[in-house]
Amino acid sequence: MSRNLQVAGRKSLVLLSGGAYPELAEEIAAYLGTEVTPTTRRQFANGELFIRPNESVRGTDAFVVQSYTTPINEWLMESLILVDALKRASAKRITVVAPFYPYARQDKKHRGREPISARLVADMFKTAGADRLMAVDLHTAQIQGFFDGPVDHLFALPLLSEYVRHNHGTKDIVVVSPDTGRVRAAEQWSDALGGLDIAFVHKTRDIDAANEIVANRVVGEVAGRCCLLIDDMIDTGGSISKAADLLFDVGATEVIIAATHGIFSGSATDRLKNSRISDVVVTSTLPIRPEQQFDKLTVLSIAPLLGQAIREVFEDGSVTSLFAGRS
Amino acid sequence: MSRNLQVAGRKSLVLLSGGAYPELAEEIAAYLGTEVTPTTRRQFANGELFIRPNESVRGTDAFVVQSYTTPINEWLMESLILVDALKRASAKRITVVAPFYPYARQDKKHRGREPISARLVADMFKTAGADRLMAVDLHTAQIQGFFDGPVDHLFALPLLSEYVRHNHGTKDIVVVSPDTGRVRAAEQWSDALGGLDIAFVHKTRDIDAANEIVANRVVGEVAGRCCLLIDDMIDTGGSISKAADLLFDVGATEVIIAATHGIFSGSATDRLKNSRISDVVVTSTLPIRPEQQFDKLTVLSIAPLLGQAIREVFEDGSVTSLFAGRS
Amino acid sequence: MSRNLQVAGRKSLVLLSGGAYPELAEEIAAYLGTEVTPTTRRQFANGELFIRPNESVRGTDAFVVQSYTTPINEWLMESLILVDALKRASAKRITVVAPFYPYARQDKKHRGREPISARLVADMFKTAGADRLMAVDLHTAQIQGFFDGPVDHLFALPLLSEYVRHNHGTKDIVVVSPDTGRVRAAEQWSDALGGLDIAFVHKTRDIDAANEIVANRVVGEVAGRCCLLIDDMIDTGGSISKAADLLFDVGATEVIIAATHGIFSGSATDRLKNSRISDVVVTSTLPIRPEQQFDKLTVLSIAPLLGQAIREVFEDGSVTSLFAGRS
Amino acid sequence: MSRNLQVAGRKSLVLLSGGAYPELAEEIAAYLGTEVTPTTRRQFANGELFIRPNESVRGTDAFVVQSYTTPINEWLMESLILVDALKRASAKRITVVAPFYPYARQDKKHRGREPISARLVADMFKTAGADRLMAVDLHTAQIQGFFDGPVDHLFALPLLSEYVRHNHGTKDIVVVSPDTGRVRAAEQWSDALGGLDIAFVHKTRDIDAANEIVANRVVGEVAGRCCLLIDDMIDTGGSISKAADLLFDVGATEVIIAATHGIFSGSATDRLKNSRISDVVVTSTLPIRPEQQFDKLTVLSIAPLLGQAIREVFEDGSVTSLFAGRS
Amino acid sequence: MSRNLQVAGRKSLVLLSGGAYPELAEEIAAYLGTEVTPTTRRQFANGELFIRPNESVRGTDAFVVQSYTTPINEWLMESLILVDALKRASAKRITVVAPFYPYARQDKKHRGREPISARLVADMFKTAGADRLMAVDLHTAQIQGFFDGPVDHLFALPLLSEYVRHNHGTKDIVVVSPDTGRVRAAEQWSDALGGLDIAFVHKTRDIDAANEIVANRVVGEVAGRCCLLIDDMIDTGGSISKAADLLFDVGATEVIIAATHGIFSGSATDRLKNSRISDVVVTSTLPIRPEQQFDKLTVLSIAPLLGQAIREVFEDGSVTSLFAGRS
Amino acid sequence: MSRNLQVAGRKSLVLLSGGAYPELAEEIAAYLGTEVTPTTRRQFANGELFIRPNESVRGTDAFVVQSYTTPINEWLMESLILVDALKRASAKRITVVAPFYPYARQDKKHRGREPISARLVADMFKTAGADRLMAVDLHTAQIQGFFDGPVDHLFALPLLSEYVRHNHGTKDIVVVSPDTGRVRAAEQWSDALGGLDIAFVHKTRDIDAANEIVANRVVGEVAGRCCLLIDDMIDTGGSISKAADLLFDVGATEVIIAATHGIFSGSATDRLKNSRISDVVVTSTLPIRPEQQFDKLTVLSIAPLLGQAIREVFEDGSVTSLFAGRS
Repeated sequence: MSRNLQVAGRKSLVLLSGGAYPELAEEIAAYLGTEVTPTTRRQFANGELFIRPNESVRGTDAFVVQSYTTPINEWLMESLILVDALKRASAKRITVVAPFYPYARQDKKHRGREPISARLVADMFKTAGADRLMAVDLHTAQIQGFFDGPVDHLFALPLLSEYVRHNHGTKDIVVVSPDTGRVRAAEQWSDALGGLDIAFVHKTRDIDAANEIVANRVVGEVAGRCCLLIDDMIDTGGSISKAADLLFDVGATEVIIAATHGIFSGSATDRLKNSRISDVVVTSTLPIRPEQQFDKLTVLSIAPLLGQAIREVFEDGSVTSLFAGRS
Repeated sequence: MSRNLQVAGRKSLVLLSGGAYPELAEEIAAYLGTEVTPTTRRQFANGELFIRPNESVRGTDAFVVQSYTTPINEWLMESLILVDALKRASAKRITVVAPFYPYARQDKKHRGREPISARLVADMFKTAGADRLMAVDLHTAQIQGFFDGPVDHLFALPLLSEYVRHNHGTKDIVVVSPDTGRVRAAEQWSDALGGLDIAFVHKTRDIDAANEIVANRVVGEVAGRCCLLIDDMIDTGGSISKAADLLFDVGATEVIIAATHGIFSGSATDRLKNSRISDVVVTSTLPIRPEQQFDKLTVLSIAPLLGQAIREVFEDGSVTSLFAGRS
Repeated sequence: MSRNLQVAGRKSLVLLSGGAYPELAEEIAAYLGTEVTPTTRRQFANGELFIRPNESVRGTDAFVVQSYTTPINEWLMESLILVDALKRASAKRITVVAPFYPYARQDKKHRGREPISARLVADMFKTAGADRLMAVDLHTAQIQGFFDGPVDHLFALPLLSEYVRHNHGTKDIVVVSPDTGRVRAAEQWSDALGGLDIAFVHKTRDIDAANEIVANRVVGEVAGRCCLLIDDMIDTGGSISKAADLLFDVGATEVIIAATHGIFSGSATDRLKNSRISDVVVTSTLPIRPEQQFDKLTVLSIAPLLGQAIREVFEDGSVTSLFAGRS
Repeated sequence: MSRNLQVAGRKSLVLLSGGAYPELAEEIAAYLGTEVTPTTRRQFANGELFIRPNESVRGTDAFVVQSYTTPINEWLMESLILVDALKRASAKRITVVAPFYPYARQDKKHRGREPISARLVADMFKTAGADRLMAVDLHTAQIQGFFDGPVDHLFALPLLSEYVRHNHGTKDIVVVSPDTGRVRAAEQWSDALGGLDIAFVHKTRDIDAANEIVANRVVGEVAGRCCLLIDDMIDTGGSISKAADLLFDVGATEVIIAATHGIFSGSATDRLKNSRISDVVVTSTLPIRPEQQFDKLTVLSIAPLLGQAIREVFEDGSVTSLFAGRS
Repeated sequence: MSRNLQVAGRKSLVLLSGGAYPELAEEIAAYLGTEVTPTTRRQFANGELFIRPNESVRGTDAFVVQSYTTPINEWLMESLILVDALKRASAKRITVVAPFYPYARQDKKHRGREPISARLVADMFKTAGADRLMAVDLHTAQIQGFFDGPVDHLFALPLLSEYVRHNHGTKDIVVVSPDTGRVRAAEQWSDALGGLDIAFVHKTRDIDAANEIVANRVVGEVAGRCCLLIDDMIDTGGSISKAADLLFDVGATEVIIAATHGIFSGSATDRLKNSRISDVVVTSTLPIRPEQQFDKLTVLSIAPLLGQAIREVFEDGSVTSLFAGRS
Repeated sequence: MSRNLQVAGRKSLVLLSGGAYPELAEEIAAYLGTEVTPTTRRQFANGELFIRPNESVRGTDAFVVQSYTTPINEWLMESLILVDALKRASAKRITVVAPFYPYARQDKKHRGREPISARLVADMFKTAGADRLMAVDLHTAQIQGFFDGPVDHLFALPLLSEYVRHNHGTKDIVVVSPDTGRVRAAEQWSDALGGLDIAFVHKTRDIDAANEIVANRVVGEVAGRCCLLIDDMIDTGGSISKAADLLFDVGATEVIIAATHGIFSGSATDRLKNSRISDVVVTSTLPIRPEQQFDKLTVLSIAPLLGQAIREVFEDGSVTSLFAGRS
């Protein structure tokens, strides 16, 4: 093959950011010792979005960081368009970094004729041109299987549990799931913190009025103890606040909350600020706007976890070590 | 095959509507002598959408009408989710009825690294489960080729030109394209109105300052005549208002505007209301909110054209006759 | 179109059965008032399988019933081959009826480098030619989203809970999940039976020896009560037997078990027969071989539920009503 | 669903023809009691083709008949374009009827870096929009597996063997394969004619000059007998003429030839006309131009076989009975 | 991973040529300082084509150059077969270099039931195995969106306009579009040459005889000036010759023609040679056979533009700089 | 692009083995000078399989060796699951090494409604994530075309024929095909051994009892000579034993057997051991269990051929040289 032109192989990483939360991408870039590739962003008067990388991405290993905060459909569409642009610009491999996976809660049909929007989102990423996904604490781990390709599923548990251990110790703490759907997650917290007791809130429904919740009761021992209420996300905060109230009602001495994704929609901030909850800790998978901040809230940066995973993906190292917290 | 269960074949049409402009779907339903199938719509606090048909759609020929108005990404996502729900609910065939096709203006790469969002949208409809598309006056007809399946491309020209003929006659009218990209459309208008003269606005760019427009001139004879300025859509109205001013500057006696899609973003309404333009006619492919209305504006209903096309698709008739205006 | 040949539409249902559990397909056929379409089955000396419908299936609505029992890979491969044969023989629509979905437990990556075999199975069904799936009580409901098409997900809860209500009443019964993963299912049982208490077994792991379970404790009130241990499947019976022992240890007066899928591998039958468990109820999604039978075991036929769903799919009715037990 | 519009189901067959051999399609139409749907065909000055059905094909069961004769790439492209037009015009199901499958001889890689054009052709049909294929006597039966969908593979053996039986009897006939690749086909002829002897021509290659054939010998008894030389196609006739000469050399008293596809390229007609071969029979899968005709040639119409198969496909009957000749 | 075999990465470019215009590929190879990889080409007597690379292409970055001249369907099929061979021979990435994109004029449905052959061609390239396309001056830029992957769209405008500027200056030149479809292109020429005036030919149709053109008129000022008639391709030359005649009729002093693709079908050469047109300039995207040559014709080599783009694609540089002429 | 992170390219080979025949993978690894990457394998009580690579495979060129022996469906499923795991673990390229391709005998429809399982298997490999296949002596070469991607098809003929030449010479040997389907293969053997005579067994069927074989006769000269009976696989050995008996009946002095794949199902070993056949030679594409061994059997290792091909694939060399035996 002496007649062929040859050049030595080389791999280049480019990091791009959607417009939702550029600070996160910049923090990741700093962790990696690089810079975010600038883009040109525009919005037509009727709301149509446009985004274009300002520099060549040919042959690169491209990572598109987008934080799916409100208005979530805008940000979703923007990142799909950016992936399309990268595909058509000959990026070699495209990884969508979605710290908070959008539409994760619509991951199954509860009744006939429902959409499965979490699968639709995975397919749309694929259609646009994404080869890989990276996400933190998917609402259910099965969402990994919605994507036809590699998914790096990262866990915030080590980060959050280290915070709890350092600030609250583990003595007399009981891990509480706010409903029956998170009891398995509570068990993982228990394991991470050295074998704590767990409890959960059981919502009973009215037999006559379909689906109306009539009473909540706590299953497990919480009286006289500090309750660590855990969840994957805090949206309106309504459900978790009610759970906290119930825990105090049945004798809890303290309630603290840990969750990966701090959405804080509507009056969430007010609700939590004014509650008897003493500590709320989340990660920075979503931006916390100034008006969403409150004294009791601690936000741990997720950038190092993402940066480390991106580096290992780029260098073909193993991301498995990042899974340590969850066996 | 005597052992097989058999039933007689039967075809059912269901018409569903996104939330953008339910009045349009209802008008189509009335035209067809049916009703819009009700849906349950919900929005999560973080903006995630949910939509579900309230009745069985198994085995049906389903038409999803959505009018892609502002906030356009919300309505796009909503219709994709509805299509996903219909697919998973065993609808036999799904047609997305997009009177105004979203992202049609991003139909090619003007420069390297640009997305082709109009193709992306076509692929997303396909991925969600759409078998067919129906649209009115695509920004460019090539968008038909972006979808891997049948596209019913309807033309508003007969409707709009009949209005012009009836209200303005055709004597002394010259059809004017506001830029070099619509001259072919002007020619079609000319043919439809019996062979009118055409003209267009030539925008010259500064040789030194890339892409900056320095002067506009009219090519063609407009002095002392009524100019029919045509376009496929009116968004901010800026470009078309400037064109009208220019036409008056070079001697036009009257300027009227005809366009298929009335977006009327930002100060479009003010701009047109306060201009010397004497008549603006559009169709109802997009909703016109009360604050967008103005005296000189006429909105022709697009529902009969859509209703007729849907009926012919459903009954396997020919939609070709609807193409008469453009042959 | 007067020159075209025309015939009246007609829909024919054919029901085919894999070789795993032909009695189930026959029971469904009887329910539907039809017969199973005979097939020719053969196995090459080296284990390669062959299956071919003996009658024309052109244009039919074909349902392939297979019960994924041991040897599960044989039965999976057989049904894929049958679907391929139907596709190539011009069946119009093919639904795989998998009362027990194979590989459902491998529905996510617990660690890096794991397969997601439940998604692989869904994709293989699609690749072979299946248009739709039907299954009973998927291990996790998200598996619906693994298939790119309609999935009829049926629930055995009404059937099983009616049995419990009739044979045991609901007084003084507490619903118990054998681990933290089924607490949500226990809640659904509680709702179905009119608001029973729930409890679960919390397995604690040794902090030093990774993943080794050191102790189980019951969370919730079970002393002096009858425990209804629920699960989606009973495989070796090891885990559920240990849970039963633990419940007796902490004071339960009686333990009964309800599960949808009775796999009864290895010494499951001996283990349950010789336990203090007083009643075990499952459905017939999997065949129970004579040597797997034991006195305390009741098997409820799943055929009517499947038959009813198949009829509604074939006749384009709504399967939603079959979801009543889970709203 | 009382609000839904409903119409009774109906199935319409349309038969379309490429420009290669319209007489064949007309003969099939006559067999079916219908007419060929007219098309508009055009060729641009640079050779680009255009074809468009003149009537609505919405919802129809469309059959595209094309006979892949010289110039074969034109006819292939024309039929692909017609399939694309039908797909975009909402035909419900499209079957490509390819009596002679193009590029069938390139069905495997003989050496590294060869194309597998027969698979490429199958994929192009699929890509253009074909749902099904119909072909007569594929060069190798495995080509069925190249298409991802139903293939109706018809056999001309009953037609051809009936001709031989009627015109030559079967006494003292030996079936001869012109090379080692058709011995299995010779065996099928033997079976069809009641157990005749078979023979074949063994081409030996020079050990030193790679791939150069040095000698041919007949394996099997042919001296003093009538040889029925069989093949799937006659292209240049070179190979089969040489085989006939060899048979006469070793004592055959008569040689007759039967093949499904009469390509008759180059000097094939001269070669056969001037040979000692006494009878050549083929079918009309390809057109025989006047200058290709010669006295000893008999062409049997393939139209009834295709017409019957199309009817059975359209009416959802079984095509298996057409396979009788090959069991 | 010490147990893994490792080798250093390396990228090899191979350049292959179809048989349509091997001189172009050789010119590109010379530009790149490499050689065209030899292939074995063969045509069966019935017209079926065969092509195979003579050397290993494993792991290479392969560029297939084909010039889609007459007989266009042959060359199209040949390049598809070559791409299939490369895919099956483990080429790492395959780019089809189509200086003139075939079937570009059939890029939309003008009426119902028309094919969109330009999309079909894009899909066929993809199906055969092409990862990328490269083309010069697509008939409409939207064709980029027909391909699901990167398209390098190169512009000949800088090359052609430099020729005009050098040979004709820009004084008193007006850029003329031969119909309403190329006015936008005329505007780009105007910008490239420093802000020239533009004009176009308006074809009016008979109101009674559908689609019959009754009169052409020039819109814009051309009297006493030199007209630069521009187009993307010259096929039969009929349309452009008539436009030239019309320009002279209304007072043009000189007419010169510039187009990217010189097809010169039928009597194009005679027509142009014998016209009053004084200069015709095209590029070498298509071969100009000796009998197509004429004195007034200048052919600019397109090889450097293609060679430069191929090098930048291979070396992961940016092709955007090649877009300079169109900004 | 100075802001981009860059690393030098590097390619790593990993070799993985299914559980069917680990010794073969180890032998290949030894040939390559590497080690088999260890995996964790598990089987659920109900037969569901699990397999996971123990080390990172990110970015690697992965080769999955599996020998499809009994129980063949288990091993097939296991390798599909392993491929899925590799795909999701970001292996860069996955090649399935299937020395014996499963279900190769079901490569066409002999009758209507039959599956084409060999195509199904190819599609399943693709669906799971395989980019390439490698196989030895496919039952029919067309199976290469069933896979949409590169297939390395290796030939054992040089290996086997060298054995025959060395141990038996070539004097007075006639190559015999056991049926009409392998005569072409016999011709290749003849060429490889310098131009031997060939013969075959003709099975005649009863005209009245469909498909029942009534008599076998040998076509070709075998009396007084040594017969080399060749086949691609020996399954039950029934057919080949009968052929050997027939050869002795008509005067053969010796019969030896050569085949690529030694399945040896059922009583194959007994049958061959107790026959008058004097020598049986196969390769190690399938494991030979101790109880399948017999004195007259020689097993030639296929590992060097596979190892050499894997090396050339990994290093982007040419595998064509391995095709030498078949030109």
